[in-house]
Amino acid sequence: MNETVLSKPLPLSAFHITDAFWRREMELVRNEVIPYQWEALNDRIPGAAPSWWMHNMRAAARRNAAKRAGKPWIPSAVAKELRFEPLPEVGQAPDPDAFYGFVFQDSDGYKWLEAVSYQLIRQPDPALKATAQEAVDAICAAQEDDGYLDTYYTLGLRERAFTNLRDHHELYCLGHLCEAAVAWHQATGQDDLLNAAIRFADCCAEKLGREPGKERGYPGHEIAEMALIRLWEETGEDRFLKQAEYFIDERGQKPFYFDIEDHARRGEALEGDGTGSAYHQANAPVRDQTEAQGHAVRAMYLYSGMADAARITGDPSLKDACEHLWHSAVEEKRYVTGGVGATHIGEAFSRPFDLPSDTAYSETCAAIGLAFFARRMLQLEPKSNYADVMEEALYNTVLSGMALDGKSFFYVNPLSCEPEACKTDARLGHVKPVRQKWFGCACCPPNIARIVSSLPQYAFTSSEDTLFVHLYVAGEMELTLNGKPLKLKIESSMPWNGEVSLSVAQGKAEGTIAVRIPGWSRDAKVSAVTLRNILTPGTPELAADEKKETEKDGYVYLTGTWEKGDRIEMFFDMPVRMLAADPRVRETAGQVCFMRGPVTYCTEAVDNQAPLHLWRVDPAALADKLDEIPVRDMEIGGVLVKSLEIPAYRVLQENGEGLYHDWHPRKEIPGTLTLIPYFVWDNRGETEMQVWQRCR
Amino acid sequence: MNETVLSKPLPLSAFHITDAFWRREMELVRNEVIPYQWEALNDRIPGAAPSWWMHNMRAAARRNAAKRAGKPWIPSAVAKELRFEPLPEVGQAPDPDAFYGFVFQDSDGYKWLEAVSYQLIRQPDPALKATAQEAVDAICAAQEDDGYLDTYYTLGLRERAFTNLRDHHELYCLGHLCEAAVAWHQATGQDDLLNAAIRFADCCAEKLGREPGKERGYPGHEIAEMALIRLWEETGEDRFLKQAEYFIDERGQKPFYFDIEDHARRGEALEGDGTGSAYHQANAPVRDQTEAQGHAVRAMYLYSGMADAARITGDPSLKDACEHLWHSAVEEKRYVTGGVGATHIGEAFSRPFDLPSDTAYSETCAAIGLAFFARRMLQLEPKSNYADVMEEALYNTVLSGMALDGKSFFYVNPLSCEPEACKTDARLGHVKPVRQKWFGCACCPPNIARIVSSLPQYAFTSSEDTLFVHLYVAGEMELTLNGKPLKLKIESSMPWNGEVSLSVAQGKAEGTIAVRIPGWSRDAKVSAVTLRNILTPGTPELAADEKKETEKDGYVYLTGTWEKGDRIEMFFDMPVRMLAADPRVRETAGQVCFMRGPVTYCTEAVDNQAPLHLWRVDPAALADKLDEIPVRDMEIGGVLVKSLEIPAYRVLQENGEGLYHDWHPRKEIPGTLTLIPYFVWDNRGETEMQVWQRCR
Repeated sequence: MNETVLSKPLPLSAFHITDAFWRREMELVRNEVIPYQWEALNDRIPGAAPSWWMHNMRAAARRNAAKRAGKPWIPSAVAKELRFEPLPEVGQAPDPDAFYGFVFQDSDGYKWLEAVSYQLIRQPDPALKATAQEAVDAICAAQEDDGYLDTYYTLGLRERAFTNLRDHHELYCLGHLCEAAVAWHQATGQDDLLNAAIRFADCCAEKLGREPGKERGYPGHEIAEMALIRLWEETGEDRFLKQAEYFIDERGQKPFYFDIEDHARRGEALEGDGTGSAYHQANAPVRDQTEAQGHAVRAMYLYSGMADAARITGDPSLKDACEHLWHSAVEEKRYVTGGVGATHIGEAFSRPFDLPSDTAYSETCAAIGLAFFARRMLQLEPKSNYADVMEEALYNTVLSGMALDGKSFFYVNPLSCEPEACKTDARLGHVKPVRQKWFGCACCPPNIARIVSSLPQYAFTSSEDTLFVHLYVAGEMELTLNGKPLKLKIESSMPWNGEVSLSVAQGKAEGTIAVRIPGWSRDAKVSAVTLRNILTPGTPELAADEKKETEKDGYVYLTGTWEKGDRIEMFFDMPVRMLAADPRVRETAGQVCFMRGPVTYCTEAVDNQAPLHLWRVDPAALADKLDEIPVRDMEIGGVLVKSLEIPAYRVLQENGEGLYHDWHPRKEIPGTLTLIPYFVWDNRGETEMQVWQRCR
Repeated sequence: MNETVLSKPLPLSAFHITDAFWRREMELVRNEVIPYQWEALNDRIPGAAPSWWMHNMRAAARRNAAKRAGKPWIPSAVAKELRFEPLPEVGQAPDPDAFYGFVFQDSDGYKWLEAVSYQLIRQPDPALKATAQEAVDAICAAQEDDGYLDTYYTLGLRERAFTNLRDHHELYCLGHLCEAAVAWHQATGQDDLLNAAIRFADCCAEKLGREPGKERGYPGHEIAEMALIRLWEETGEDRFLKQAEYFIDERGQKPFYFDIEDHARRGEALEGDGTGSAYHQANAPVRDQTEAQGHAVRAMYLYSGMADAARITGDPSLKDACEHLWHSAVEEKRYVTGGVGATHIGEAFSRPFDLPSDTAYSETCAAIGLAFFARRMLQLEPKSNYADVMEEALYNTVLSGMALDGKSFFYVNPLSCEPEACKTDARLGHVKPVRQKWFGCACCPPNIARIVSSLPQYAFTSSEDTLFVHLYVAGEMELTLNGKPLKLKIESSMPWNGEVSLSVAQGKAEGTIAVRIPGWSRDAKVSAVTLRNILTPGTPELAADEKKETEKDGYVYLTGTWEKGDRIEMFFDMPVRMLAADPRVRETAGQVCFMRGPVTYCTEAVDNQAPLHLWRVDPAALADKLDEIPVRDMEIGGVLVKSLEIPAYRVLQENGEGLYHDWHPRKEIPGTLTLIPYFVWDNRGETEMQVWQRCR
């Protein structure tokens, strides 16, 4: 494998963000989301469902203290195997020693801590650090002496730990703990949480593996794969890489572990055919999987871990599997908003090309997972298609998940929404027409917090001799090329404008800067002005073979000596694009949608007369005039975005024709549809929304 | 109220069917469905879910005998309140004394018996009658000494009878028992089943009503309303009419009875706001209901009873309510196949204009209920719109419910069906891509049997001086007009051809024959040739005022003296119609469907290249050329139907464009879509189907 292309995310400490767009999001996370979530983790939000996170941690700490003191500890009555989300009876005070919440509740705090760590790297804050330390201390105190750390079992039937990996999320919690611990270590240099993660990872490894006396188990909800690789990267301890590889390689082997486990629990006959394991991506060895299936978040997390492992081990069969799964997820099962997981049944992928708009699931966490997967595919092989999809997911569904004031969240991100229908129709019961304050199952809000807080790691990766610029995020960067330090400055006003520059502010180094040509740009211009020569790929000044070297898979590779004053100027034109879906997508046949740059647009009834489906556009007339479409500044929720004004027609309601009548051309009047970025929908009150516009 | 227009169905004994189309269906029911269902009721179908009907009846008879003999009878262990569809554990022999099946299982046999009775009226058959007598005897033996007749409670906790009218179907079973008893009485002149019905009706009336000491209950699943009215008509006993009126008038009054009942059972606080009662059409007094809501079959049965009561009592407020509910169900919530009840959630009406094709519920029984309602609205006021909808329901969804060989049945009738999707997608779990042999909940097959067997009662109704011809069913009819007997002969080859004649074969009488102008006919011609004069409505021979008299609400009224040799000739042109839905129907925007006469058409992948949604028609080009569309004979499952050949275009799949790409006109090739009648779909193996054709 060509080592040059394998890259790692830029350390967060090496980037100072100045980007207007993403800096706002990061500040929102810092100033709104993180403090709010801390209150939520401590059950101090009036009217919101309790998180029980701190409650569980504190109870587990008391349990550990009692055990050390040799005092008896009787598991609470609510500690029953297979119980999911136990809650106190209405009107009852909670049992202070009982576990409450989902079985994976521990992970909510870990995600929060990971986001806080990223924010602390970006900008130290003693008060925030002190708060986070409180969480870290609570976690460490909740850890049992043998390293076990999952309050669901610690407060319950501990002897049943590791007996239901399929449904109970011990290894999922391990994964999030590792992610948090690495981030906390990088933010503070402290070992406390890192040691907790190492001890829990070792505790798990004692039970699970191929060695005699161990069970051949693996996670029911993946994430430990990529998280253990991070732990390996941070600690250099090879056993964590081996553990990750074991989880990946063992998955889906016969006999199916989840069936064995199920059999042991229930004493029933073994199914043995893996039925039901597709939900967990465990119905076949991962190298034999070609279709993205099952729970979308789990799938994305698994594939991310596989891509990490493929990069590190150089295993071509694993890389092949990642490419097949990428194709399936992205080219057959992805919404135009970068969302994945079309069906609420199992929060899962549906069949290829089944992408319904109104019943869409498109969970925020799944889009986040798609960004994880894409970034890792980029690290494995820099192809701009991966970055295009990552960008699409980030700018659309990930951001749609959070209100512009950072105070409410979508779990489900539909592509069309009629509020009344969502409220009265159980078939749409999973779709909320307005963002919610906090979920009982609060996976999405802290997940948004951690990806937004670590955004530069998605924008930039680097190898020994190459900096890859995947996303144009403005800021100041420190890096080394071939061991020599450089300071770079990136200027950009993405996603609203395609003019970007990258200049060397300090240092001198030889090497390559590879910049991505976005897939949405039709006429990209990249030119490098150095102190010695002008590199302009594709212009007659360069010989044909030089050009070949400088552009590959959507990246322009600029190689040379870089020093202060050197500059790369880029102009990515950002036309309004009118897109159609593959005709195999039944749902959107005869419909188009609009994008500009990476931003997907939608209509809202607050700007356009409802019902929105009575509007149509004429794509044949529009196709040649897309550059005439007005792109206007619009303020939504205090944020300036670009709106589009699309010529359209509105069908007039004719009464008295009956429900069914002889076809005739509809009476319609010309008008203008105002489109806004999808990620800002539902920030002006409850209203109808649709991404796809009808053509007839 | 004008008594002339109020009409009653023609007695079945007065009509001898010769109609090629409907006679085939009746013979199918007689020769296939009825014998098969008898085997099913007796649990003698290998591989099919048992019905338990005869099992339950026989067990109840033993229980009654034991009680009479003073022997103890201990309810079986499976007799538990609120248990729904108890079944023996796998591998266990059923308890001979236990109740099995749904709580409404008794009604399956009643429906069967009703169908058998209609067939016996049409054509005596001692063997069939003997079989039916076995069923009648079993029912009578199952009746308790106090008249109570519901094996679910007789075999279980009898003391809890009448305590859960909402969910347990005692009054539903009463209704079907009355319907069967009246039919059996008409077929055989025997009182046995009629007495059982009378005794059970009286037993119910002792418990329920407004009198002191009674509960103000009414049916959770309606039908008793119209059934008791039939019992009144057959017996002349006014108490049954009063009982029906009570059920109608009490429904939805505050405090809500189902809440009171629920409270009494569970001991919990009373909701009191009727929440949840909309499913049962009990959230408001029936005269205040304007929107068709809740379980579609229940709604249709209630509205049918309301229309009966409105006709008999002359209550204008009840007639108003019926008209509002008709409008809502038919003009806002009806599929173009005559199906109603769009959502599988609660087998219910969805909101207005929500008529999805693939997830449609459109239960066969609901279309049957729509025909019931329509016939009763016709009896109340002869307007051809009622007959148009009745005809549409009968020729499309009702018949779609049964395979052409009478051996398998649809419960759900989707308007588009991708078999693979139905099998793998839980969101479509209710849609079966092929008809099923017999359902555990077997309401639809015997319901089809009873409506098909009594079809002439939907075609013809009469008052003292008027015969109303709603549907053109060929046959020989005996009737009296103003007390004088007439024999008529009707010739028709509906639904394939619009030439119809009605001639007087014998007798002489004065009066009116009112014939319906079908809504689908664009250029209807009706002329009457009598021995004395020629009545041709609308021709210059008739004075303007005479014409006015002769046509009203879609019926041509021909009044005079009728005697042998008189003849009415009708020609209803039957153009291929290309229909669009009201634009408020989001699902079918930009789509058209095709009908010819009352028959709705669809495409199947067995005739047209799949996937069907890649085909489009050009409505603007077709609109003026509909009369050029070839209408061809086609044999499907041994039955000759008419197919349509529609010019269309098939989109070509272009590879390598990506899931989303810049819009461009699709490459497509011209071709021809073969359409077949919807009611014959899925008779040539599992295949994709769609009713609505795309325009782009």
